[in-house]
Amino acid sequence: MEMKHLFLDDYSEGAHPRILKTLEETNLSQELGYGEDDYCRQAAETIKAKIENPYASIYFVSGGTQANILVLASMLKPYESVIAPQTAHIAIHEAGAIELTGHKINVVPSKDGKIKPEQIADICDEHTDEHMVRPKAVFISNSTEIGTIYKKSELEGLAEICKQKRLFLYLDGARLGSALASLESDISLRDLSRLVDVFYIGATKNGALLGEAVVITRPELQPDFRYHIKQRGGLLAKGRLLGIQFLELFRDNLYFDLARHANEMACRLVHGIDALGYSFLSPSTTNQIFPILPGSIITKLQQMYGFYVWEKMDSENSAIRLVTSWATKVEAVDAFLIDLRSFRGVG
Amino acid sequence: MEMKHLFLDDYSEGAHPRILKTLEETNLSQELGYGEDDYCRQAAETIKAKIENPYASIYFVSGGTQANILVLASMLKPYESVIAPQTAHIAIHEAGAIELTGHKINVVPSKDGKIKPEQIADICDEHTDEHMVRPKAVFISNSTEIGTIYKKSELEGLAEICKQKRLFLYLDGARLGSALASLESDISLRDLSRLVDVFYIGATKNGALLGEAVVITRPELQPDFRYHIKQRGGLLAKGRLLGIQFLELFRDNLYFDLARHANEMACRLVHGIDALGYSFLSPSTTNQIFPILPGSIITKLQQMYGFYVWEKMDSENSAIRLVTSWATKVEAVDAFLIDLRSFRGVG
Amino acid sequence: MEMKHLFLDDYSEGAHPRILKTLEETNLSQELGYGEDDYCRQAAETIKAKIENPYASIYFVSGGTQANILVLASMLKPYESVIAPQTAHIAIHEAGAIELTGHKINVVPSKDGKIKPEQIADICDEHTDEHMVRPKAVFISNSTEIGTIYKKSELEGLAEICKQKRLFLYLDGARLGSALASLESDISLRDLSRLVDVFYIGATKNGALLGEAVVITRPELQPDFRYHIKQRGGLLAKGRLLGIQFLELFRDNLYFDLARHANEMACRLVHGIDALGYSFLSPSTTNQIFPILPGSIITKLQQMYGFYVWEKMDSENSAIRLVTSWATKVEAVDAFLIDLRSFRGVG
Amino acid sequence: MEMKHLFLDDYSEGAHPRILKTLEETNLSQELGYGEDDYCRQAAETIKAKIENPYASIYFVSGGTQANILVLASMLKPYESVIAPQTAHIAIHEAGAIELTGHKINVVPSKDGKIKPEQIADICDEHTDEHMVRPKAVFISNSTEIGTIYKKSELEGLAEICKQKRLFLYLDGARLGSALASLESDISLRDLSRLVDVFYIGATKNGALLGEAVVITRPELQPDFRYHIKQRGGLLAKGRLLGIQFLELFRDNLYFDLARHANEMACRLVHGIDALGYSFLSPSTTNQIFPILPGSIITKLQQMYGFYVWEKMDSENSAIRLVTSWATKVEAVDAFLIDLRSFRGVG
Repeated sequence: MEMKHLFLDDYSEGAHPRILKTLEETNLSQELGYGEDDYCRQAAETIKAKIENPYASIYFVSGGTQANILVLASMLKPYESVIAPQTAHIAIHEAGAIELTGHKINVVPSKDGKIKPEQIADICDEHTDEHMVRPKAVFISNSTEIGTIYKKSELEGLAEICKQKRLFLYLDGARLGSALASLESDISLRDLSRLVDVFYIGATKNGALLGEAVVITRPELQPDFRYHIKQRGGLLAKGRLLGIQFLELFRDNLYFDLARHANEMACRLVHGIDALGYSFLSPSTTNQIFPILPGSIITKLQQMYGFYVWEKMDSENSAIRLVTSWATKVEAVDAFLIDLRSFRGVG
Repeated sequence: MEMKHLFLDDYSEGAHPRILKTLEETNLSQELGYGEDDYCRQAAETIKAKIENPYASIYFVSGGTQANILVLASMLKPYESVIAPQTAHIAIHEAGAIELTGHKINVVPSKDGKIKPEQIADICDEHTDEHMVRPKAVFISNSTEIGTIYKKSELEGLAEICKQKRLFLYLDGARLGSALASLESDISLRDLSRLVDVFYIGATKNGALLGEAVVITRPELQPDFRYHIKQRGGLLAKGRLLGIQFLELFRDNLYFDLARHANEMACRLVHGIDALGYSFLSPSTTNQIFPILPGSIITKLQQMYGFYVWEKMDSENSAIRLVTSWATKVEAVDAFLIDLRSFRGVG
Repeated sequence: MEMKHLFLDDYSEGAHPRILKTLEETNLSQELGYGEDDYCRQAAETIKAKIENPYASIYFVSGGTQANILVLASMLKPYESVIAPQTAHIAIHEAGAIELTGHKINVVPSKDGKIKPEQIADICDEHTDEHMVRPKAVFISNSTEIGTIYKKSELEGLAEICKQKRLFLYLDGARLGSALASLESDISLRDLSRLVDVFYIGATKNGALLGEAVVITRPELQPDFRYHIKQRGGLLAKGRLLGIQFLELFRDNLYFDLARHANEMACRLVHGIDALGYSFLSPSTTNQIFPILPGSIITKLQQMYGFYVWEKMDSENSAIRLVTSWATKVEAVDAFLIDLRSFRGVG
Repeated sequence: MEMKHLFLDDYSEGAHPRILKTLEETNLSQELGYGEDDYCRQAAETIKAKIENPYASIYFVSGGTQANILVLASMLKPYESVIAPQTAHIAIHEAGAIELTGHKINVVPSKDGKIKPEQIADICDEHTDEHMVRPKAVFISNSTEIGTIYKKSELEGLAEICKQKRLFLYLDGARLGSALASLESDISLRDLSRLVDVFYIGATKNGALLGEAVVITRPELQPDFRYHIKQRGGLLAKGRLLGIQFLELFRDNLYFDLARHANEMACRLVHGIDALGYSFLSPSTTNQIFPILPGSIITKLQQMYGFYVWEKMDSENSAIRLVTSWATKVEAVDAFLIDLRSFRGVG
């Protein structure tokens, strides 16, 4: 049976039409390879203007796991580790990519996908000598892997403890657009640039064919980053492909417009599902939501929609993950809600 | 001063228009992520048909260095090494990517970019116990980094010694299209599939935005290759981007048509330069040529054309590298020849 | 103030006198280097006889962390992980040595230092595809890091689940002598050889200057282990130093006699401390015990004895670690008990 | 047939009797583990006095390959490489240990086992961007792998170019005793401390059971070196074993007395062999010599003496390696010379 719609993720479609159009328009200009082209340069300048930080350095890479590998491996000495919440993408869903670069992840418990300053302090205090790793970085995601977001005060708290403990603060922005476009968010790109040492602006999950822009604000981490990209196989010959897309996304507000649309579609799902009396795994205000539904209804929905069953809550109910994107149509959302209501009726 | 044309490389432009068109046409179909989409599956089936090997397994990755990392790191145990000619891309121009995965490259001398069976045998015979690495793979490129190609008999000789010495034979096909489309080539994709254990079909340098198709013919090397891709940051969320492009390139003969065009443009350059009495660093019949020119003329050409000065030959002359591609226009070639002739007159 | 005695660890002294004597007697015989000498060969044969397994292969290395690195790194492919209890030495006290070899440790909760078959099954069941590591080995210690031991039935249960899930079972025997010499132990060296794929017999902590004997019983893990030792800097030029010591320890029952003495000294401490009404962190029957004492008494004891404060139990009490060895004299034990009793009186 | 004597290497015997005696005398003192004992501290102080550099930091490790791994891996960022002569131990006889830590070795040609400043300059000049590794260290050995030594002026030349090119200069001193005790040497320990950034003083090959003292003179390379030792499995629980031996070797001039004896025995061999009309592969003045002998005579010598055939010189002659040590008796040398003379007579 054909699916009505996939809510599996935010990378089921190709790219936003404006991006394809720009690729076509620029197609035959001859450019230098490996990211030294004019588009990459302009895109970097544009981003520096948006984050209001002329001293940042910007690098474009292909995907989130690649960005995480590059940032953490370039930042840490062999015996240094990174602290992360247990829900972190690097801790679970990157096939041991960080460990492959030689580094331990110090995992701390987390219900909401976020980490707290006191957890960081505790880990540091427990690691005292050369028989143990030395924690040197903190990994956070915004939005988190379960759709929640950091408030500015939380981010300031993390920045403060990292400063005290001499840790680098790194923010995985695979879904940064959705996080910053959340109605609950009080963080700007400029705040990020001020508060974290490195972050990346994810575009693969927000309208591009592929591409993440790594932003390094801390001067000591900037030199030679291109060596790391090249050595780990991340330097695209046609680097222009990444530059052109970011240039288009940040030429105006396209990047945030797309994220806002994704959030609105998620919000519409949340309201509809909530109205039917279901609860959620996390208080997400971004484009990933996790309604808790009875198994019997999940089975029926799976015949018509694509989504992941995320976590078993009890013997009868599970949280599922529904993801919306720039490409999600309101019709798909409404169809889902109608079907859910009808299944509930007979559930 | 504006350049008339860049002969710097074969990735100065975007993609062949047919590829952009297909990306547009398929843009809104919803697909599974991470290369499990229908386009990737169809592209893999198409390639298996072209190489006439239903038992091969095919994986799409972003670039050549990434392919080399993945293939060699997945193939070698920690103490095993790869034998390569001194001109090999992995030995010089990948920033130590292979060593970063933990493996030594046993480099052997080479004038023509190729390696000979007896060189392989010698290396194996010198490595006898656990105080030395154990050679376990051979790396070759076709076309080579200096534009030459392997003949079928040469490839058979390498396959034979690798069998005897229990080595894996791996062929880097960054410019495989140009190699196989060379008028001097007597090798088919089917031959490759029969003679080497792993090879990749390069598309970044032959008309795609990005993409290399890794073909693993040896059964013991096939399992779990996707784990390696994921763990090293090479698994694109929108894997469809790679599948769609390869599907288009191999739907008919586009892949080879583009390569043939590049070769014809290089051939036209060779004939023109040869007619002016210059010699070449290597007997290339592919899309990279290396004419040896006086420094004074090189300086003038550099005002108008982009290219690399490859190797100093003596106090007065250097070999330069000129690269053509699917996008090179005959007008650009002829302009170059006319300018060269005029510089020579007054040289 | 001078310490009366160190109960810090079981490696505070040099070697058992019989070992020093043998080193002297063999000192001027000329032997092959790198562990290919006659002493190493004889020691390996002696151990194979003791474990009743002529097909095992035996390698001598310098220390426990080195043994763990070598065994796990040689056993795992890049994307494979090892499952271990949270108390495991590799998870805490090896400075990220296992991660440095590229592998994740999947840590499971443990109160008693041991792991249970169902914990292993759960971890395996959660790891289903190439976005996650693939668990491939289980790490256990006997005795554990908190002095407890595995019973034969427990080991059989672990062996069974490892067989089902196709995992390698590896036992860290840094304190294997003490474990097997425990009055509660029902496991023999022969049992170990039958039930686990690799284990090591620790001698550094049981009377030798240094040395651990790695025993590999699983045929597929035996080839080329010496390559790993050499490549990781573990192959001693004077390998004889290790062979001679193991030969002496296993010539008769010296290895177990020394362990039994250490256990008896620990047991005497346990009885004495228990009689004073204190409890223990773990039910140890080996040479590490963890009495829980009031902070005020700990402070006084620290003036006279060396030991680690292991874990804060509540606001007033902490568990301390007392370690005995082949060299611990009954007088030192009794002095400690007398002092503890006197502090308690006035405590 | 029983061998008369092994000239295979300088680690065929145990330890110098004074070392064994000191191990016995100190055996029962209780010490802190992991190299934090009093003997290690005193040994470090003694060495700092000998090299006349109170700011150096000293670490004791088990063997030469381990020292090379630790020094180079701690010194280099992932994309940085080490330059070494083609004869270097790290380039051939360490089973790819340096590559396993992720680093390329830039090998330069060498006839005499040494490297020249202009070779270093050339390698640096060829490596210009992030497509290639960045050379950051130079590896030399004194004595070299073929018995030659550096003169002070040569070492000054290397130090100068390293300073210019911002490279670390590292000296492998596996046979440093023999080098400095050579009659041709004009280098002192103090010179070394001034001219190189890191070196190690080898004792395994000069009278100890095992042990190399790594001396780090460059401040930026000193912090956290113990983390590296621990993480790579090199921190011995009974670190005292290393400290006690170095303390004894440097208490007076024992270290150099032993080396001088080894050199004298080698010199006696050289004179005797030279007198018979044979030439040598290298002009060694240390404890490794490489006479070139006819194959027929080599075969006969192999019945009675242990040694390696080092290099085939032509169809009839090969260089063999004869190594002497603190334990080589003049009788063994003379017996060898007598046998050689008799074989020559009938050769």
